[in-house]
Parts: sequence; structure tokens; C-alpha cells
Amino acid sequence: MTYCLGMLLDAGMVLIADTRTNAGVDNFSCYKKLHCLAEGPDRQIFAASSGSLSVSQSVIALLEEGLPPEGPEEIPRSLSAVTSLFRAAQLVGEAVQIINRKVGAALEAIHINSAISLLLGGRIGDEPPRLFLIYAAGNFIECQPDSPFLQIGETKYGRPILDRSIDMETPLSDAVKIAFLSFDSAMRSNLGVARPLDMVVMPRDPSLPLLTRRIEPDDDYFNEMSLSWAHMLHQATKTIPDPPFMKGYGTTDSSG
Amino acid sequence: MTYCLGMLLDAGMVLIADTRTNAGVDNFSCYKKLHCLAEGPDRQIFAASSGSLSVSQSVIALLEEGLPPEGPEEIPRSLSAVTSLFRAAQLVGEAVQIINRKVGAALEAIHINSAISLLLGGRIGDEPPRLFLIYAAGNFIECQPDSPFLQIGETKYGRPILDRSIDMETPLSDAVKIAFLSFDSAMRSNLGVARPLDMVVMPRDPSLPLLTRRIEPDDDYFNEMSLSWAHMLHQATKTIPDPPFMKGYGTTDSSG
Repeated sequence: MTYCLGMLLDAGMVLIADTRTNAGVDNFSCYKKLHCLAEGPDRQIFAASSGSLSVSQSVIALLEEGLPPEGPEEIPRSLSAVTSLFRAAQLVGEAVQIINRKVGAALEAIHINSAISLLLGGRIGDEPPRLFLIYAAGNFIECQPDSPFLQIGETKYGRPILDRSIDMETPLSDAVKIAFLSFDSAMRSNLGVARPLDMVVMPRDPSLPLLTRRIEPDDDYFNEMSLSWAHMLHQATKTIPDPPFMKGYGTTDSSG
Repeated sequence: MTYCLGMLLDAGMVLIADTRTNAGVDNFSCYKKLHCLAEGPDRQIFAASSGSLSVSQSVIALLEEGLPPEGPEEIPRSLSAVTSLFRAAQLVGEAVQIINRKVGAALEAIHINSAISLLLGGRIGDEPPRLFLIYAAGNFIECQPDSPFLQIGETKYGRPILDRSIDMETPLSDAVKIAFLSFDSAMRSNLGVARPLDMVVMPRDPSLPLLTRRIEPDDDYFNEMSLSWAHMLHQATKTIPDPPFMKGYGTTDSSG
């Protein structure tokens, strides 16, 4: 399993991925799933992947080497040359399709799910940051203001806090906090999601630096946040009045 | 889709089911999924069902009519005669297997999932309340103190609040509040879960009355709880300090 989360807000983009992979329940490993696919003065492109590790690693490697040339040009097509993030999503989708053709049928024959999905985020030139979700067939959708986040992998446990708390106006530091709470929920309920987490924060304001960071299992901030969140949830539960029809069934006040 | 939740605590048992069913996304209906299977001076048995509505209705109807007699006795076997809730779970499991044999293959042939699962809770005689989860094959597990709740249907969105907040010592009124918050999360994130909710609360103390209640879509308590929960989550998020590495990326304080 895996959990990856991307947010595209007024203030910028946040992309976070965990590092847990597993083949069955008896083979857990730690693999980086947040990759920098292109970095230069005019572009920063990142991808987070979920699904078959062998397929997603091959897709990333193919993108690094470049896709087969098209038309009269002899040079491999790479993310270092695409002119927009939409073109980048198309190239990544094509890479997914190429790898699917190479190994999809072989994996299907032995009943192994070869599906992967990716979150692709970044900026090219003067474009503001953009964020895409690329599906197993290589098709994709772009993150839009009405739903300013995209998830792949083990998405459900971590979603309620996002549905309640994230909108376009959420500041970046709050967005990172809420994203951590979302990961905390997913990690508590599914052993297939675990730290370290890899994150990248790309402010919309190009004068602010890109932030990349790994959150280790012993990260003090994350651990304190998780504890105080549990405490505050407990307090909030106590603060909500008891249901009127539960009078006489043991109240919050008398439970100590 | 459906969401049903059962809790078995020191203070008693709580069983809640939503009422939304859907065939595809264009055919939504409202069906009661929390059923009273046996009621008398010595027993109260309830079941909540998830999965194929035709299969679960047939299982409930078969249990009401009684299963075919076994051995020399000529009377149908019913929940009004079983001597423990374990025996009740066995009888319900057998009913699931009988209906599976009648319609399972026919549904499978047209690629319709016939799987159902049930939460079975109640008390017989002087037994304390017991709670079982019955799977699609008719096998079952019993709720135990280390994991004092069981879920079926759309379980994931509503689970983080349970993982953080429910233990054996949770008083019944808090348990109902937390259950409502769990349903609120599931309903926000999945249109396939919706009010009315049907609930039954069975205190362990036999001198306290059984409570059954329907929570309608316009229930004032539920709606106010949902609003104040959203508000408290927002406040809690603001209370957690910003990540130290996010200094300079727009703080909670300056965001207004």
C-alpha cells in the first residue's frame, strides 16, 4: 500500500508521499515514492507514485532516459524539454502506457495487479504550479479549485480531515499540518502506510524557495502534533453536548 | 453502499446502520438495514446488513420464517429458540449460506456481487450483550475488548475517529456521539452513505431500558453536532503550532 497526497492552493502546491511498500503482509520495505523528474532554472517537476513498485520504477526510469523519439527528430523525448505541465502529464501518461504494454500482460497472467497511479506536480517557466493525477491507463485529470487536492493509494482514512479543512485559501503551513494529520490517520488505520514521509512544498510566489524535506519516524514535530491532535479530538468530543435522548445512559460528566 | 457500526463496551452495545442503498449511481433508495430479529422477555437480537439488498432481505426473511428443521425435530429452527448469541450467529451464518446457494451462482453468472455481511448483536437470558460480524461465507468473528468495535460496508472514512476515541471504558453517550461523528465523516465523503440512521443502544445494566431511535436528515442534534465538530476541528488545526520548517511560508497567525 501507499498513500500520496497533492494539494494545489492559492498559496502553492504541496506533494507528500509515504515510503512503505509491501508484497503481501510479510514483506514490507521502504522505498522512496516521491521523485524529482526535472529540475532546472525554468522547471521543477515532481511525481509521487502508488501501485506496483516494479511498474512505477520502470516508468520513472523510462522518463529519466527519455521516451522514444517521434517524427523526424532523433532525440529522446524528456521532461526537460516539454513546454507545459500539461505536456509533461501527457509524456508521463505515455510512459505508463509503454511500460504497461511491456509487462502488463505478463503480470496479469500470474494474477498480479500491475496498475499504478501518479500525482504529477510542478511548474514550467512562468506557469503557476499545476497538479495532475495520472491513472493506470495513462489518462489523467488536473486538480481544480473546487476540489483542491488529489489522493492516490490508501486514500480513505485520510480523507475526512481534508474534506472538512482544505480549501483554496488554506495557507501553506496549515495545509502541511492538515496533510500530516491526514497521513497520521492513514498510518494509524493501515500498516501499509508509514513514515518516513517525503514532501515538497512549491509556493506560488516564485520568490519563495522550494522546500523539500523528509519526515522521519522520530520527527519531534510530527509526534507532538499527533499527540496533541488526539488530545484535542478527545476534548472536542467531550465539549459536544450529549445526545438529548441519551440522558440516563451515563454522561460525559460522570465518566471522569 | 452502506455503513454499519457496532460497538461493544463495558457500558453496553451500540448498533447503528444507515439506510442508503444504490444500484449504480443512478438508482438510490432508502431501505431499513437495522432489523430486530428476535424480541422477548429473555432475548433481544438485532442485525445490521451490508451488501446485496436482495440477498440480505432474503436472509432476514428466512431467519424470520425459520431455517429447515434438523434431526428428528419437525419445527423450523429460529432465533426465538437459540440458547446463546453464539448459536444465533451460527444460525445467521447458515441462513447466509442457504441464500448464497440459492442465488449466489445466478448473480455471479451476470457479474453481480452477491456478497453480504452482517453485524449481529444482542443478549439472551442473563448473558451480557455480545456482538458478531458475519462474513459473506457465513463464517463470523466476535467483538473483543482489544478492538471494541466492528464495521461493515463503507468502513474507512469513519474509522480514524473510532481508532482515536473508542475504548472499552467509553461511556454510552460518548460512544453514540463518536459513532455519529464517524457516520458524519462517511456521509461527507461517500454519497452512498446517508441518513436516516437507525440505532439501538443496549446497556449492559439490564435495569436500563433498550433504546431504539431513527435519526432523520433534519435531526437538530446531529446537525448541530456536525457543525460544532467542523468548527472545533478548525480551531484545533489552528492551535497546533506551525511546522518549524514552514517559517516564512505564510503562517496561521497572518492568514486571518
